[in-house]
Amino acid sequence: MPIYHHTFKIQSDARPTFEDVTEQVEAALAESGFKDGILMVFSQHTTCSVLIQEASDDTDYWGTEFLMQDLVGALGKIIPTCLTQNQYLHPGPMHIEAALGRDELASWSLNTDAHLRSVILGRSVLVPVEDGAMVLGEFGRIYFADFDHTRARERKVRVQIIGE
Amino acid sequence: MPIYHHTFKIQSDARPTFEDVTEQVEAALAESGFKDGILMVFSQHTTCSVLIQEASDDTDYWGTEFLMQDLVGALGKIIPTCLTQNQYLHPGPMHIEAALGRDELASWSLNTDAHLRSVILGRSVLVPVEDGAMVLGEFGRIYFADFDHTRARERKVRVQIIGE
Amino acid sequence: MPIYHHTFKIQSDARPTFEDVTEQVEAALAESGFKDGILMVFSQHTTCSVLIQEASDDTDYWGTEFLMQDLVGALGKIIPTCLTQNQYLHPGPMHIEAALGRDELASWSLNTDAHLRSVILGRSVLVPVEDGAMVLGEFGRIYFADFDHTRARERKVRVQIIGE
Repeated sequence: MPIYHHTFKIQSDARPTFEDVTEQVEAALAESGFKDGILMVFSQHTTCSVLIQEASDDTDYWGTEFLMQDLVGALGKIIPTCLTQNQYLHPGPMHIEAALGRDELASWSLNTDAHLRSVILGRSVLVPVEDGAMVLGEFGRIYFADFDHTRARERKVRVQIIGE
Repeated sequence: MPIYHHTFKIQSDARPTFEDVTEQVEAALAESGFKDGILMVFSQHTTCSVLIQEASDDTDYWGTEFLMQDLVGALGKIIPTCLTQNQYLHPGPMHIEAALGRDELASWSLNTDAHLRSVILGRSVLVPVEDGAMVLGEFGRIYFADFDHTRARERKVRVQIIGE
Repeated sequence: MPIYHHTFKIQSDARPTFEDVTEQVEAALAESGFKDGILMVFSQHTTCSVLIQEASDDTDYWGTEFLMQDLVGALGKIIPTCLTQNQYLHPGPMHIEAALGRDELASWSLNTDAHLRSVILGRSVLVPVEDGAMVLGEFGRIYFADFDHTRARERKVRVQIIGE
């Protein structure tokens, strides 16, 4: 039983970004030719998550789907947006020193909120594959979520399928 | 290495429902004949989750296990029960129009809380299989959680095993 | 395609404990000889989780990484530390009776907070394996989290790889 790997990229904004990647994942599944198996969508970034959620239809003035902005609002009650240092314990002095040593701006480390929000939601989702299609039900969509508001970035989304 | 699929149904109430499905999953594993592998229990519903948790023994007057009601209480602090429109951004006007076009009642879309609670807990669990049995430890049980309080419904639970 | 199993142990403290187990998991992968596949790290304990997170560099006076203590702080806003009975519904009288029947101290059941925090974070993580290495990105580390503050214990961490 072979394993199929596929990686694609998305562009995030300097605010929590939720990208519906269902079509890209479906294209990867079609390209693999697999009819049966388990499909994983994975983020290697520790401020990002992969989610299965219903599409919200409506979007706010920033283009964020209502349900995703509601998610940001709910998590924000216990993990408020990180505005400056010492709001959270992290980043501490050793972390900042290491970041500066990598030629990062210190302000890029003010993404503690993103690390915490994303770990609660998880780094990957699994979807069964049957008859060559993902079993997502009538409403399930796959989203890549980037919670890092400190900078816009190119992000990698990884699809891996085990099956036949 | 073959893949085994099994689907069964449960009936939810018009309130958060937590069903211990460990026996149904064990029966599926026995029927598969697999001795070794990884077992996934998956919900294709975007207001439902699958959890591994200890059984609570005690239940409240509604029949909900104490630990599960404590979970509802904890999540309710940041995701209060959705009672009416405009409490959350979702459902917006386009979502309601689409729902009415599917002959749904508008009130069925007042399940924003269920979409948010369930995505935090995740859509699936994985369990290792060894010597023909799930590795759940002394206390682990598998629960199907339906957070949608707007209506009682029949729900699908999907078991998929990769192994031999 | 074979399946590889490996179990190792860690020692928790009588407070939320976060152990970076990346090196143990890398050693298990090397021992398996697998070059390609999906790797799962799983906790069979219902008060523990497995997480992927960035290393924080700085630690507090207890030795806990800053980012992990921030996670405890965030979850503690909706799931405060369980100090005594009736703070949560669980443990109820039937649960305590069963625990005493197993020769457990009643105070060991005051870990409701740990059951709730850990189920939100999940029992396992998955990591793609490519070219004999885990795809964790530049900063991803694997942590075993034990949220049970009632007692120090030896805990099992399970690694399972499907691949070739």
